[in-house]
Amino acid sequence: MSETTPQTTGDRVDGRTPDQLREVRITRGWLDHAEGSALIEFGRTRVLCAASFTEGVPRWKKGSGSGWVTAEYAMLPRATDSRSPRESVKGKIGGRTHEISRLIGRSLRAVIDLDALGENTIQLDCDVLQADGGTRTAAITGAYVALADAISWGRRHTSLSATATVLTDSVSAISVGIVDGRPLLDLEYREDVAADTDMNVVVTGTGGLVEVQGTAEGVPFSRAELTTLLDLAESGCASLAQIQRDVLAEQR
Amino acid sequence: MSETTPQTTGDRVDGRTPDQLREVRITRGWLDHAEGSALIEFGRTRVLCAASFTEGVPRWKKGSGSGWVTAEYAMLPRATDSRSPRESVKGKIGGRTHEISRLIGRSLRAVIDLDALGENTIQLDCDVLQADGGTRTAAITGAYVALADAISWGRRHTSLSATATVLTDSVSAISVGIVDGRPLLDLEYREDVAADTDMNVVVTGTGGLVEVQGTAEGVPFSRAELTTLLDLAESGCASLAQIQRDVLAEQR
Amino acid sequence: MSETTPQTTGDRVDGRTPDQLREVRITRGWLDHAEGSALIEFGRTRVLCAASFTEGVPRWKKGSGSGWVTAEYAMLPRATDSRSPRESVKGKIGGRTHEISRLIGRSLRAVIDLDALGENTIQLDCDVLQADGGTRTAAITGAYVALADAISWGRRHTSLSATATVLTDSVSAISVGIVDGRPLLDLEYREDVAADTDMNVVVTGTGGLVEVQGTAEGVPFSRAELTTLLDLAESGCASLAQIQRDVLAEQR
Amino acid sequence: MSETTPQTTGDRVDGRTPDQLREVRITRGWLDHAEGSALIEFGRTRVLCAASFTEGVPRWKKGSGSGWVTAEYAMLPRATDSRSPRESVKGKIGGRTHEISRLIGRSLRAVIDLDALGENTIQLDCDVLQADGGTRTAAITGAYVALADAISWGRRHTSLSATATVLTDSVSAISVGIVDGRPLLDLEYREDVAADTDMNVVVTGTGGLVEVQGTAEGVPFSRAELTTLLDLAESGCASLAQIQRDVLAEQR
Amino acid sequence: MSETTPQTTGDRVDGRTPDQLREVRITRGWLDHAEGSALIEFGRTRVLCAASFTEGVPRWKKGSGSGWVTAEYAMLPRATDSRSPRESVKGKIGGRTHEISRLIGRSLRAVIDLDALGENTIQLDCDVLQADGGTRTAAITGAYVALADAISWGRRHTSLSATATVLTDSVSAISVGIVDGRPLLDLEYREDVAADTDMNVVVTGTGGLVEVQGTAEGVPFSRAELTTLLDLAESGCASLAQIQRDVLAEQR
Amino acid sequence: MSETTPQTTGDRVDGRTPDQLREVRITRGWLDHAEGSALIEFGRTRVLCAASFTEGVPRWKKGSGSGWVTAEYAMLPRATDSRSPRESVKGKIGGRTHEISRLIGRSLRAVIDLDALGENTIQLDCDVLQADGGTRTAAITGAYVALADAISWGRRHTSLSATATVLTDSVSAISVGIVDGRPLLDLEYREDVAADTDMNVVVTGTGGLVEVQGTAEGVPFSRAELTTLLDLAESGCASLAQIQRDVLAEQR
Repeated sequence: MSETTPQTTGDRVDGRTPDQLREVRITRGWLDHAEGSALIEFGRTRVLCAASFTEGVPRWKKGSGSGWVTAEYAMLPRATDSRSPRESVKGKIGGRTHEISRLIGRSLRAVIDLDALGENTIQLDCDVLQADGGTRTAAITGAYVALADAISWGRRHTSLSATATVLTDSVSAISVGIVDGRPLLDLEYREDVAADTDMNVVVTGTGGLVEVQGTAEGVPFSRAELTTLLDLAESGCASLAQIQRDVLAEQR
Repeated sequence: MSETTPQTTGDRVDGRTPDQLREVRITRGWLDHAEGSALIEFGRTRVLCAASFTEGVPRWKKGSGSGWVTAEYAMLPRATDSRSPRESVKGKIGGRTHEISRLIGRSLRAVIDLDALGENTIQLDCDVLQADGGTRTAAITGAYVALADAISWGRRHTSLSATATVLTDSVSAISVGIVDGRPLLDLEYREDVAADTDMNVVVTGTGGLVEVQGTAEGVPFSRAELTTLLDLAESGCASLAQIQRDVLAEQR
Repeated sequence: MSETTPQTTGDRVDGRTPDQLREVRITRGWLDHAEGSALIEFGRTRVLCAASFTEGVPRWKKGSGSGWVTAEYAMLPRATDSRSPRESVKGKIGGRTHEISRLIGRSLRAVIDLDALGENTIQLDCDVLQADGGTRTAAITGAYVALADAISWGRRHTSLSATATVLTDSVSAISVGIVDGRPLLDLEYREDVAADTDMNVVVTGTGGLVEVQGTAEGVPFSRAELTTLLDLAESGCASLAQIQRDVLAEQR
Repeated sequence: MSETTPQTTGDRVDGRTPDQLREVRITRGWLDHAEGSALIEFGRTRVLCAASFTEGVPRWKKGSGSGWVTAEYAMLPRATDSRSPRESVKGKIGGRTHEISRLIGRSLRAVIDLDALGENTIQLDCDVLQADGGTRTAAITGAYVALADAISWGRRHTSLSATATVLTDSVSAISVGIVDGRPLLDLEYREDVAADTDMNVVVTGTGGLVEVQGTAEGVPFSRAELTTLLDLAESGCASLAQIQRDVLAEQR
Repeated sequence: MSETTPQTTGDRVDGRTPDQLREVRITRGWLDHAEGSALIEFGRTRVLCAASFTEGVPRWKKGSGSGWVTAEYAMLPRATDSRSPRESVKGKIGGRTHEISRLIGRSLRAVIDLDALGENTIQLDCDVLQADGGTRTAAITGAYVALADAISWGRRHTSLSATATVLTDSVSAISVGIVDGRPLLDLEYREDVAADTDMNVVVTGTGGLVEVQGTAEGVPFSRAELTTLLDLAESGCASLAQIQRDVLAEQR
Repeated sequence: MSETTPQTTGDRVDGRTPDQLREVRITRGWLDHAEGSALIEFGRTRVLCAASFTEGVPRWKKGSGSGWVTAEYAMLPRATDSRSPRESVKGKIGGRTHEISRLIGRSLRAVIDLDALGENTIQLDCDVLQADGGTRTAAITGAYVALADAISWGRRHTSLSATATVLTDSVSAISVGIVDGRPLLDLEYREDVAADTDMNVVVTGTGGLVEVQGTAEGVPFSRAELTTLLDLAESGCASLAQIQRDVLAEQR
């Protein structure tokens, strides 16, 4: 497990400074069955990320010599402050769930060489056990760790090459936003609902941008504000990349 | 948290004796938002039980003066050895899921005085994070702890009477089965698939039977075998009832 | 057709004694198209059981050399005292329907040698035309007759061996319960809703137990009560097994 | 029960003459719970028609002073020669089912004075137990009998006026078609699949046309052929109307 | 594009005479991607018809040497005067939609030689952009034009024979009805809701009847009225067939 | 109708320069029934936008004094080069559809004062009739015009104030991307599939940013590239805002 050392000298609702992450904890191998897994916590937000490695690919990729990585995101009904009905009971998946699942899949595919993966599929499941803002960014950050372990598993247990570079970079994500006119890093739920602008940024370990999704919740934002938010997000993702490196460096 | 002290002197697949439970751990209050919650572990089986207390009742009970308790059971896709598709993605809930949800609800309603609960609803969510046999019995046992805490919450935060006896008894459940001709308590997954007869028994803290569900997987079973299995199950549930008492006696 | 001779000297709601079955009628071959069929009546409960024999097996059994038997249970909307919406209109199948379908399938598979059946599939459809308690037990009892006829059909019209023992035993089912403190056999609807404990028992023709499903609707039940109920059920199933033998002995 | 006396002197597949109905049987009150019911048989086609009378109307008719009549048609999976999957299992209703349900509802509403019915609803359920061609026409013809009985029930048990004319006429339906160039009345299944043109005609007891639905399955049909088919259908419906009068005249 | 020259000397709501069509416009090739397409307008009713030609047939026709033509009809939510919820959002298709899709498919298959089409599939999509009565008849009439163009495309771009007669005739459709006792051709919406009898008639270019669907909305109709309506419809379809010929004769 | 004057002196696939929009056409009031509507074309991309104004709000806003604006996006099956199955037939809405519907709704709500709208609802339907890249940006741009007309309608026909400022700004959207290392404005489909980075930007008439959604399809993008793309998008949206002003200035 790897975690940040939180300082609580700022004036945000939980005592953080504007550019400070919440305490981040990553517990590798939380599940016994999955080829890769991580329980990731951004403060009170807890997401269980499982990576399932299977040989073979979906029908539309058969014979391509190339692999596939996909993701599903979901939330337990009582992850939130008041209970939400299950999507399985409603019989359909909501727009938000679809949107985040697609975002996670795209983010991971940005750092994997599908040709090097060969005709293998890795399915990521990111289940939010408890939500307090930033669930999609925690999911991406934790899913990368589970993905890395599933690839190691594949190298040991399948015909996947032990030496080819399958992961071309690491990837992490963080939310930023403007609350009461102030740019803040890693919004918790109370900050998120109060934000005028909310942005999720996905960044690789070497600093490349993978996704920038900024939304004005109330008044539109300016180019200058956008610049400040991107600076904050890049700095936050650099910290997350270091935490990922640390936790993956541990012997298992 | 409360747990059993496992001995491993037997000859079962994991070293247990035929009448021995797996290590049982109950972590109360695992969730920050839920009115009651427990992470329960029977060996490698882990079920997160959340109890949501809401004032008011479904339409068909309005004006009855009486409350309602219901439950939903589900399994994360990678709880099992190979990944299962999500029921939310398939768009419908399987028969097994329905059946277990109904069983959990009935079991809890057997120990609650719905009139004393007043027009309040408690919804239990039992999500299997990892499955290794006995998920429904772990779910019932853990859900009781979450339910008890939700009722305490209701006493402190709603008009629910602080003194009325809402819970009339405790309730727990265990599986038993005949494997290779031998009656065993608390089957783990490898034993479960090898069992000729599989039975789930739900017992109250004072020893009353709430549910007896025995199924011959292969050859039918005899009355004598049924008797032996019921003896084993009653003994196992007595241990679980003690663990529940211990964990609920802790200060929070 | 075969039926019991009802006596009406008891003090139950319909004049039966506690250990008396309702009038049981089985009309074999009620349908012209199905390979096996039976209209079974337990008093006013009427279930139409159809067995469809098809060569081949579901994909997951292909090449196994072994067959498959499965069942679906459903109720016409006006089988009950007040009309219920159709599950086809609601677009999903309720938990109770799923549960009973699974129970019927398991019960029949307990008396069939799937290897002897070869790669053939028999699908049972049990449709409740009128419900007055005990629909699932009538369904199992009638489905066995339809199944036996479908196997005979298979022997005559397919490559199924004319001599191999496909059915290893017969199977029937009955409900028992405790009403006003009194153990009763074969509950009709009015007794069912008044029962404190309700149990469905599936027994083979040679007396082996296939399923025991006992539920405390109100107060839990004791081991002694369980014993009494099982005695009643075994006696009832013995009568049903005789009726099945009689009806199947008739020339067609 | 009322039935026709079939003659078998013709040269159709079952010995009928071109203008001859199959044997028609109507068993009134086949169900114990429904306010009106009829098991109708056109030869081997058997449809169970249940009419459910409920006080009150759907929301969109509330306060109108007027009632509602609606119908649902369905087929048991093994009504046909080879088993069809259940619509409840598929999770949606097929186009043919929808189409026939709508046809039955419209046909019955053509002979009922919804204002005289007052704010009451009658729901018809027409379930095909066995299909051998003409299921929709048998359903309409039987549903009328069930409807008439449900109205009588309403007169005795609700505030529905005992004297107002709720039914303004009777209604029945029959199929006609051109097979091998020959116009035939009341097609059974083998004739139906061989027909070039297939037509269902719904006629009131006084001879008014309610529905005419003619379809060229192969080559288009001419105005002259249409005229011949309509003549046949009117004659068949006249016979059905007499059978309906006879069966409804019986004491119950 | 081809269109009628409307005269407005009659006394209908829009000035037409009883036997007059609305202005009919057909814009061929309205879509760039589809193999055949037509935007058809019957007055304010506008239906976009697209024909998709694909080589190969559904599984159940494979190896038959014969092709398939099928159709789907749908309406945009704001095609109508007040917005209707989307069927994709409701998660199921209504009975009316199913019924019309089936009607369009049958009507087109009546004029196509599926053997001559070979193992190719043509899928028609008829989407109502604006509805003012007669959407199904406009859809059939426009779909024929799109179908003809898709076949031409197939002759140029696939192995479909350049000379075989695939279309054996043309087909068009029109609605007729009795409004205030007067038979009218081509009802617009206001007339449609006021009609006592409503009939849709599908006729080939050579005058054969393909479908006759007449419904009494209020009082039943007589044979004499039916005759008058059929005369009107045949005349209307003759005009539509001429318009189809004209538009298909244009160079593209 | 209003449109741009396209120049074709560049070297893009259709002759445009990198910073050039496709020909933009907006046909106001394309529909007769809708309170506001616009058919918008970006080159071959055609989206029909309908705005439905209804008095009243969804239940969760009742009594708030505030209105609601929401949107649904969909695509006709043959809008694309090869036919896609209908979401109504599949029975569920895809992730992409959900995502775009949500984006359109958010974008429009950014320029409307829901309090000034009062308890009224405006539902936007954006149906893609033909797709050639940029369908979501065309939808936003066209939906704004339909929205503006629906508000004008509301002022004339409902209690909506004739003078209050309901629309606080205009809004339009455009796609930008990096293709072969070159930043391009308003990608058509062939460019879209070849793009390494794809970004949709939503900008108000006064230049505020509402949404920035940038995605690296292949290699990540740098901050410098992001800056260039945002410059292009701002310039494109300024042109679209002018076209919107022009078309809304026309007399109707």
